[in-house]
Amino acid sequence: MFEKYDVIVVGGGHAGCEAAAAAANMGSKVMLITMNMGVIAQMSCNPAMGGVAKGQIVREIDAMGGYSGIVADKTTLQFRMLNRSKGPAMWSPRTQNDRMRFAEEWRIALEKTPNIDFWQDMVSSLLIKDGKVSGVKTSLGVEIESNAVVLTNGTFLNGVIHIGEKRMGGGRTAEKSSTGITEQLVELGFESGRMKTGTPPRVDGRSLDYSKMEEQWGDDDGGKFSYTDTVVPSEKRCCWITYTNPAVHEMLKEGFEKSPMFTGRIKGLGPRYCPSIEDKINRFAERDRHQIFVEPEGFETVEIYVNGFSTSLPEDIQLKALRLIPGFENVKMFRPGYAIEYDYFPPTQLYLSLETKLIENLFFAGQINGTTGYEEAAAQGFITGINAHQKINKKEAVILKRSESYIGVLIDDLVTKGTEEPYRMFTSRAEHRLLLRQDNADERLSPIAFKLGLINEERIEKVKLKIKNALSIVKYTKEHSVNKDIANPILEKLETATLNQNVKLFALLGRPQVKTSDLRNMNLEFDEFLKSFDKETVEQAEIKIKYDSYFEKELEIVAKMKKMEDKEINVDFNYHQLNSLSKEAREKLMKIKPKTLGQASRISGVTPSDVSVLMVHISR
Amino acid sequence: MFEKYDVIVVGGGHAGCEAAAAAANMGSKVMLITMNMGVIAQMSCNPAMGGVAKGQIVREIDAMGGYSGIVADKTTLQFRMLNRSKGPAMWSPRTQNDRMRFAEEWRIALEKTPNIDFWQDMVSSLLIKDGKVSGVKTSLGVEIESNAVVLTNGTFLNGVIHIGEKRMGGGRTAEKSSTGITEQLVELGFESGRMKTGTPPRVDGRSLDYSKMEEQWGDDDGGKFSYTDTVVPSEKRCCWITYTNPAVHEMLKEGFEKSPMFTGRIKGLGPRYCPSIEDKINRFAERDRHQIFVEPEGFETVEIYVNGFSTSLPEDIQLKALRLIPGFENVKMFRPGYAIEYDYFPPTQLYLSLETKLIENLFFAGQINGTTGYEEAAAQGFITGINAHQKINKKEAVILKRSESYIGVLIDDLVTKGTEEPYRMFTSRAEHRLLLRQDNADERLSPIAFKLGLINEERIEKVKLKIKNALSIVKYTKEHSVNKDIANPILEKLETATLNQNVKLFALLGRPQVKTSDLRNMNLEFDEFLKSFDKETVEQAEIKIKYDSYFEKELEIVAKMKKMEDKEINVDFNYHQLNSLSKEAREKLMKIKPKTLGQASRISGVTPSDVSVLMVHISR
Repeated sequence: MFEKYDVIVVGGGHAGCEAAAAAANMGSKVMLITMNMGVIAQMSCNPAMGGVAKGQIVREIDAMGGYSGIVADKTTLQFRMLNRSKGPAMWSPRTQNDRMRFAEEWRIALEKTPNIDFWQDMVSSLLIKDGKVSGVKTSLGVEIESNAVVLTNGTFLNGVIHIGEKRMGGGRTAEKSSTGITEQLVELGFESGRMKTGTPPRVDGRSLDYSKMEEQWGDDDGGKFSYTDTVVPSEKRCCWITYTNPAVHEMLKEGFEKSPMFTGRIKGLGPRYCPSIEDKINRFAERDRHQIFVEPEGFETVEIYVNGFSTSLPEDIQLKALRLIPGFENVKMFRPGYAIEYDYFPPTQLYLSLETKLIENLFFAGQINGTTGYEEAAAQGFITGINAHQKINKKEAVILKRSESYIGVLIDDLVTKGTEEPYRMFTSRAEHRLLLRQDNADERLSPIAFKLGLINEERIEKVKLKIKNALSIVKYTKEHSVNKDIANPILEKLETATLNQNVKLFALLGRPQVKTSDLRNMNLEFDEFLKSFDKETVEQAEIKIKYDSYFEKELEIVAKMKKMEDKEINVDFNYHQLNSLSKEAREKLMKIKPKTLGQASRISGVTPSDVSVLMVHISR
Repeated sequence: MFEKYDVIVVGGGHAGCEAAAAAANMGSKVMLITMNMGVIAQMSCNPAMGGVAKGQIVREIDAMGGYSGIVADKTTLQFRMLNRSKGPAMWSPRTQNDRMRFAEEWRIALEKTPNIDFWQDMVSSLLIKDGKVSGVKTSLGVEIESNAVVLTNGTFLNGVIHIGEKRMGGGRTAEKSSTGITEQLVELGFESGRMKTGTPPRVDGRSLDYSKMEEQWGDDDGGKFSYTDTVVPSEKRCCWITYTNPAVHEMLKEGFEKSPMFTGRIKGLGPRYCPSIEDKINRFAERDRHQIFVEPEGFETVEIYVNGFSTSLPEDIQLKALRLIPGFENVKMFRPGYAIEYDYFPPTQLYLSLETKLIENLFFAGQINGTTGYEEAAAQGFITGINAHQKINKKEAVILKRSESYIGVLIDDLVTKGTEEPYRMFTSRAEHRLLLRQDNADERLSPIAFKLGLINEERIEKVKLKIKNALSIVKYTKEHSVNKDIANPILEKLETATLNQNVKLFALLGRPQVKTSDLRNMNLEFDEFLKSFDKETVEQAEIKIKYDSYFEKELEIVAKMKKMEDKEINVDFNYHQLNSLSKEAREKLMKIKPKTLGQASRISGVTPSDVSVLMVHISR
């Protein structure tokens, strides 16, 4: 009953939405299949986007023409640039979002994208011919053909929800789980595993005493994710901070004997860096308090998300413990927190394109690959959408480098190293993080997106203009000076050394204490000159001036490593013939099938001497 | 873990929402339990409110302080007053609504109502002590105590969804069904049955050719449900009309052998007056076309509701048949239509207060009582909310009369006659429909609501003022005349007899052809006089002038019947002692336990001679 599609995307979460949009925007005919069209792009967990390293990913997706940043902007309750007191590589944008509007805006965005059809149904198996995927079959018995399939099943594959000693099937609270796919993939030779994640209780904001908490508003001066001209809501909402205490911890411990985490009911590993509250008090027994972020779920609703209090303890313990937190004395719960276990497929079974090694034209993105986080999922989805399109059009896969994007780091880590617990991005995972900043994602990635047809000429010209303008500001600062007599009183106030002679603006701006805004006060011509540039461009110039020496050093390192990094290897090479490799290296290399020497060098178990052997062999 | 509540409402659909709001607004502490807080007030079927007789119900709920009309107004895509060419008793307001926003506005309205708490969970059984309900137990094992419980389970009780030969458990598409309650109630002695309802496919509006359909816009001059000062969205959306044809019918017939309706898989009876398309072509084989209303699902979405095409035929047949409808040649389906079977409890097991006869303080509202329709559900929910509050406060139950409201007709029909197929309201069910108009719901019911504390003083004063003003207009028309020389040219144009002498405005307005606006042109003083009244008041006056003689006759009939109608009977009377009653009458009377002689007279099987026996007995 359906035409044949280029790409079928299974699942309508962050990964599925970006996958569908990317493939469609490149020109593929896309079918998005979801179990419930009413909950496309649900934020299953916290009502927020971005954060440390994750905000950079959203900017990268946006720079390449993805939608996550746009949707987040349109539904922003408040925006904060985290880590602004640190160097620019650490700056990380984050938004609180209106949960319902976020889903609504995604749905509207997808509906406005030509080439995307929708079908509400559960995919129960894949159609496979000669080792190649050729479509899907649904629980209604419908067969839909396609050239490629992207699986983004999230937590739905054989999902089991735990609250205390209760277990129930489900892909999210109040939603059915999905069955059939794991079993088929395992039959086909895939390795599968179980992972676990969790979510905190949702409570009634009317029952909280905010006077006992710290207010946390967003940044005053705006800020947003998208490089496009998205309009952020003018209204803002406040968050609050409070803390657990020993009494809370004691109460929680009373539930430990019924905790599915500790009784061994839950087999899957949970996200180490986003632990449940019971995990935190267990692992960090010495800490007598943990921070709780009290986050509104939307502009209109009184529902509150208790960030930092993820738990699968019995619901009565959840409530009793919450009531011991300052401000929560009379709290009423709307929905209890819960843990969910689901199937994933170790991502070492994928190529860097996110295509599976076993089945051609089959791609995986999101939690099915063992990751956690909306942003990580969206990034993978976006790349699978691109690569599914590339593959079926016999074009080269798009593989972002570790030195050019967090997305590259994410995928290389997954595919090369695998993961045994839900993988989350951190700045520390990126060896070239100085280069992978939120401010230059457009500079890094928009040109790639433009070549792929994901962004238009107007947009790439805007990026080029921003770079050009920033450089012209840099040039100006190198050519113009400040008068020491005008500058010194201001420098004194800034608590930095005064000048004995006039110096170039550039030199002064190199000082950590001095900002462009200070220089504007010292030099009216400079102030006048800057008036023709927008805030982002000026900020970009300032970052270049302050940190360019560091960036250049980093670029030199990248260049040095490039030879090895980019050295291509035939993915089908038979490493067993190379006896000089260690046995472990041979096995791992056969499994991972690295695409470059750089990738090979990051496989755990591949030693520097193995890398030398490979280098010798490849150069022959 | 919960405090004790006055009233627990189980289910968050139209019935549950109105029940919670009504009880809370009367001062009860209410707990609303729903399986999914994300889908409170979902429009499960068509994205519209009101219609013939149903629109009157929405006005009645609104006149009494319920929320359905307010929420519908705030989310209106278009408004139409149906049957405006007929007498005012037939005028029926109807809105198309934005499905997502409708649910959102209800949720906001409930959150803004003090005294309502929420809990997301599935109620699996009732707590019962000494024949009295004392709370509920949930699937999480939580017990919540209360003085009264209102069950509004909709289609969720043991819900089974059918599409062709496929069956799956579910309370709505993509939502889990609810289990446990039916079994417990049957154990307690309740009679239960199965009913069936269905919904049409949802399609992609981008795939339709609207040029082949008839446009249908809403009324130009606004109009809305609520008597309060709700603001209707200024933007409007168009609907379209198209038709099936013999080719469509032939295609549908190809699926008959797999139809769960015809193969006997579905046991429950469906709504006779809202049949599936396969039912229509089966029952009305002589008709070679059926009307299809093409309704948008919201302001932003491209999703379309195919009103008139409810079906549970296999999804491929649904699609093939749709594609034979003009404008649907290239239609793409988002979600197939389906049928759903669910448990209901014959409503003869209820008192007129909607309290169950078997278990004290337990109330039923909505589809659980065998009704169909949002408005019928909302009305019952509203009344159960009121009566649960009244009961636990030892106050008299609120029982609206058949002569004062459609709500009264609805409940009296259900409780007195029962229903074996989904019960839907029609104007023909109301013997006093001349009195039960959409224009005077406030006059009829707001005084009752005011006494109950459901609407405030300001609001009742507004109603009184409207009545007073309308009467002053009527008085004016009786005291002032038109000049025949000015009137005659206009009367000629209106194609009604000219005057030989000056007559009172009242006399002229009695003519069907003459409207108040015509009289304004004939008499400038009258025009000036009317300027101080709003549109609704003037309309109210015109209706009084044109139809008052009919209304008065109707009121005389009501008065004559009142003696019998209001004659109270002890509900616990033992009819078996009255040997002069027929055996059937005795049995039915014992079962129904009528509250008045009027109600007794409407029980099927109770003959006029039985009524005479009762009358004699009671007057003794």
